[in-house]
Amino acid sequence: MEKIFLSTSRRIEIVDITTIVSEKVQSVENGVVVLYVPHTTAGVFINEGFDPTVREDLIDTLQRLVPYSAAYKHLEGNADAHIKSTLIGSSVTVIVENGRLMLGRWQSIFFAEFDGPRRREVWLKTL
Amino acid sequence: MEKIFLSTSRRIEIVDITTIVSEKVQSVENGVVVLYVPHTTAGVFINEGFDPTVREDLIDTLQRLVPYSAAYKHLEGNADAHIKSTLIGSSVTVIVENGRLMLGRWQSIFFAEFDGPRRREVWLKTL
Amino acid sequence: MEKIFLSTSRRIEIVDITTIVSEKVQSVENGVVVLYVPHTTAGVFINEGFDPTVREDLIDTLQRLVPYSAAYKHLEGNADAHIKSTLIGSSVTVIVENGRLMLGRWQSIFFAEFDGPRRREVWLKTL
Repeated sequence: MEKIFLSTSRRIEIVDITTIVSEKVQSVENGVVVLYVPHTTAGVFINEGFDPTVREDLIDTLQRLVPYSAAYKHLEGNADAHIKSTLIGSSVTVIVENGRLMLGRWQSIFFAEFDGPRRREVWLKTL
Repeated sequence: MEKIFLSTSRRIEIVDITTIVSEKVQSVENGVVVLYVPHTTAGVFINEGFDPTVREDLIDTLQRLVPYSAAYKHLEGNADAHIKSTLIGSSVTVIVENGRLMLGRWQSIFFAEFDGPRRREVWLKTL
Repeated sequence: MEKIFLSTSRRIEIVDITTIVSEKVQSVENGVVVLYVPHTTAGVFINEGFDPTVREDLIDTLQRLVPYSAAYKHLEGNADAHIKSTLIGSSVTVIVENGRLMLGRWQSIFFAEFDGPRRREVWLKTL
């Protein structure tokens, strides 16, 4: 298992981690990489990396569906972040061939912060 | 492949299965465990296990976004449960090292029942 | 890695790919198959395959939660498709035993098109 370390600077922030993940799988001939987020107010997903407005629309939609303020029972002020993380998911699996991440042409891998700013980790396991 | 058996007692219920999953991976040196739910009105996810209100807020939000009663075409009375399950997902993958589930400090693994009470299974495959 | 090719004929369409995936894993003794969608406006999920109204209710709910028209910043007319895909997810993992997909009794594997009609691919990796 390897670890990627990152820092977020806002409460909600989507960080493109494609380049650093690519570097970590260069020695993998053929297999997959599992990316795992060990936090409960952050997630990981794959979607378009070219136009940053795609990520803004995703954040806006999640804010509308799961608002920061609502009649939550969890009183730490981050109930929405737990729910958003659950909807996004805590892991993704990507195929690797000849040391290269097999992403689609427009795909990037994103770390999704929902309760920052914080120091965060993404764990990698290649199979 | 191994199976975990569980029973739920309410229509919607979130069951912490971390301990039983931990026991099943003790002989795995280094790898991952795939947890798979073979049902279509239940799912599995990973999030905070310490404060039970986090799970209550998740349920409340899912009930608001995908209500039990709406103009559904599926007439078995559990259309919402199929949709909730699809949003939560049917599998998770967790890294295992030296027989130990590599969860984050606050993470637990949860079975999510959306059409109980029922007898349910979670399937495990270690790689 | 293997590829499944499919064509969709509507903007939003859910295609059952269980049969073709089943054929691709017949030579796998024991393991898992990872299904990966390399697109950013499509996804893959597992849910009920028997009654087609389940899929219609899922589409209706996603349309209600993430409408086609809203104040999106991404100006290509498919912002909703990126968000829907992110909620559904880009991969699933299914256990395989003796060349057989270990699905639950009512489960099918579905490709979810959110910005069709298009020619699409699903990538498979067995482990």
